Amino acid sequence: MKKILNDPKKAAEEAMDGIVLSQSQVLRRIPGRRIVVRKSSPVIGKVGLICGGGSGHEPAHSGYVGKGMLDAAVMGDVFTSPAPGDIITAIESVNGGAGVLLIIWNYTGDVMNFTFAEEAAREKGIVTDHVIVNDDVAIKDTRKRRGVGGTIFVQKIAGAKAEQKASLEEVKRVAQSVIRNCKSMGIALTPCIVPAVGKPTFTISEDEVELGIGIHGEPGVQKAKMMRSEEIAAFLVNNIIPELDASQGDQVAVMVQGMGGTSNMEKFIFFKDAYDQITKHGLNVRSSFIGEYTPSMEMGGIHLTVLKLDSELRALLEEATEAPGWHVWS
Amino acid sequence: MKKILNDPKKAAEEAMDGIVLSQSQVLRRIPGRRIVVRKSSPVIGKVGLICGGGSGHEPAHSGYVGKGMLDAAVMGDVFTSPAPGDIITAIESVNGGAGVLLIIWNYTGDVMNFTFAEEAAREKGIVTDHVIVNDDVAIKDTRKRRGVGGTIFVQKIAGAKAEQKASLEEVKRVAQSVIRNCKSMGIALTPCIVPAVGKPTFTISEDEVELGIGIHGEPGVQKAKMMRSEEIAAFLVNNIIPELDASQGDQVAVMVQGMGGTSNMEKFIFFKDAYDQITKHGLNVRSSFIGEYTPSMEMGGIHLTVLKLDSELRALLEEATEAPGWHVWS
Repeated sequence: MKKILNDPKKAAEEAMDGIVLSQSQVLRRIPGRRIVVRKSSPVIGKVGLICGGGSGHEPAHSGYVGKGMLDAAVMGDVFTSPAPGDIITAIESVNGGAGVLLIIWNYTGDVMNFTFAEEAAREKGIVTDHVIVNDDVAIKDTRKRRGVGGTIFVQKIAGAKAEQKASLEEVKRVAQSVIRNCKSMGIALTPCIVPAVGKPTFTISEDEVELGIGIHGEPGVQKAKMMRSEEIAAFLVNNIIPELDASQGDQVAVMVQGMGGTSNMEKFIFFKDAYDQITKHGLNVRSSFIGEYTPSMEMGGIHLTVLKLDSELRALLEEATEAPGWHVWS
Repeated sequence: MKKILNDPKKAAEEAMDGIVLSQSQVLRRIPGRRIVVRKSSPVIGKVGLICGGGSGHEPAHSGYVGKGMLDAAVMGDVFTSPAPGDIITAIESVNGGAGVLLIIWNYTGDVMNFTFAEEAAREKGIVTDHVIVNDDVAIKDTRKRRGVGGTIFVQKIAGAKAEQKASLEEVKRVAQSVIRNCKSMGIALTPCIVPAVGKPTFTISEDEVELGIGIHGEPGVQKAKMMRSEEIAAFLVNNIIPELDASQGDQVAVMVQGMGGTSNMEKFIFFKDAYDQITKHGLNVRSSFIGEYTPSMEMGGIHLTVLKLDSELRALLEEATEAPGWHVWS
């Protein structure tokens, strides 16, 4: 393993320090905890928004903390769910009296730890609720579908709604609207290396591609012969569009994200091919997001997320945010 | 070579199409040319700003086109200087009557083609001038120093000045002030693969690092045993700071950029170490930029750029821009 590290076991901790140091006008860290909060937190009268998960997906989730997105991110070790104690502290830290919404990725560990922490916070008298994001169509059983790129759209749109001082019910309603209208799927060309493990997460040949990957360095649901960008785009779009309840002329937002080790040039080539495929299905690309939003360390590969927009989602998506990791491009 | 491509020979062309398609409200392409211009170009009464170079450095330079940064980017094939004919057309396209400034990277091909095009544009009666960026301290002879990350600071700061309808002389003066006060150096862990070539640009062992790399997939000026992040940070900072005419307490802007294949987690770990080193030298980090600003395809590695700020440079750096590739973070 050749990486820019000091102690592999402290990688998540040191990265979090770098994140907060680089944006100390927006972010602060709760001492002794793996929690990054908005500097101004708690915002009185605003619903608090929390997300979190394993490290290794930077800029997720600490980078999405800031006015207009999250109030706190709770981070675990690389690809490991955060500790319930940290999640409880995060809920307390962002409670401005209007309730706290937890945005949970649909992974067993995350769902278990976040709902446990939510219950504990309720017992302390804090009004909470949660949504679970499961936008990955690579898995047929919708209950088992993972949260992937769509989670970032949930954070952005629910964050904009909360900023308007909407009620907890209203913020949850728009978060659920994003989840219902957002589907994703990805592919990988190469694995990644978890620092504390030191070896690749899977093996793959030079002429193969993994289809239907998650974002934790895992292989896909199916291996195939390497394909051209146009073929990958057609494959992903053909899996995603039938899962959206979309009609001719509907507007969509498109997110094309590299998994960490894929060049920006490849992302733009793939974006053009995905755009052409989506347009062929009669949909109208309103806005495009290209870069790395929740990658898997330095994995080679790409994830496509399509969000069907209505006038409410579109307006909220286009609101400004101070979250340092949110950007339209790489 | 396993990349997300269609035809390797058309990679630069297709990436450019994706870039313009994704930001069609800000960017447009000049038909038949490798030129991306601001949609509103030429802006009457404003100095036109142009930069360009080989492709493979996305989001540079097309992503830096937009209000507050460039008026046009002229792109060549991967790691290849753009054609003089395209540069001449770009100059004509952004000429709003206040003159055109060319921001040139200090590479033989770029300097030759851009100054040739400048001469041709002058013969057509367009007032032009140029600056040459040479911020890479890895090379001792200052005349041969390459332009690297500092070029993006030149674009940002000169772009903000031009937006204020400053004269060509004034825009050139702040561009030169950035060049004088900005130094960079980088390292590589792995090479990259130029699509039309299909094989790695150099070979390197699992326990080695290349010190003093450029941004075209080339090896460094020196090979060394792999180092920890703290050691890399100390090495780079110790090479950069003596080249800045800086005093205790001076403010600096810091850019930490991956070369394309390095994970964001590593960038944040390295940023913290670089921050600590810069602070040890008595300098005050005013603003931090972390991500990929002008990478080398999917190369593994990192580049550090330090810009000494005065009140003018700081204010211009902090102005807003609509350029889609400009962001504070990855």
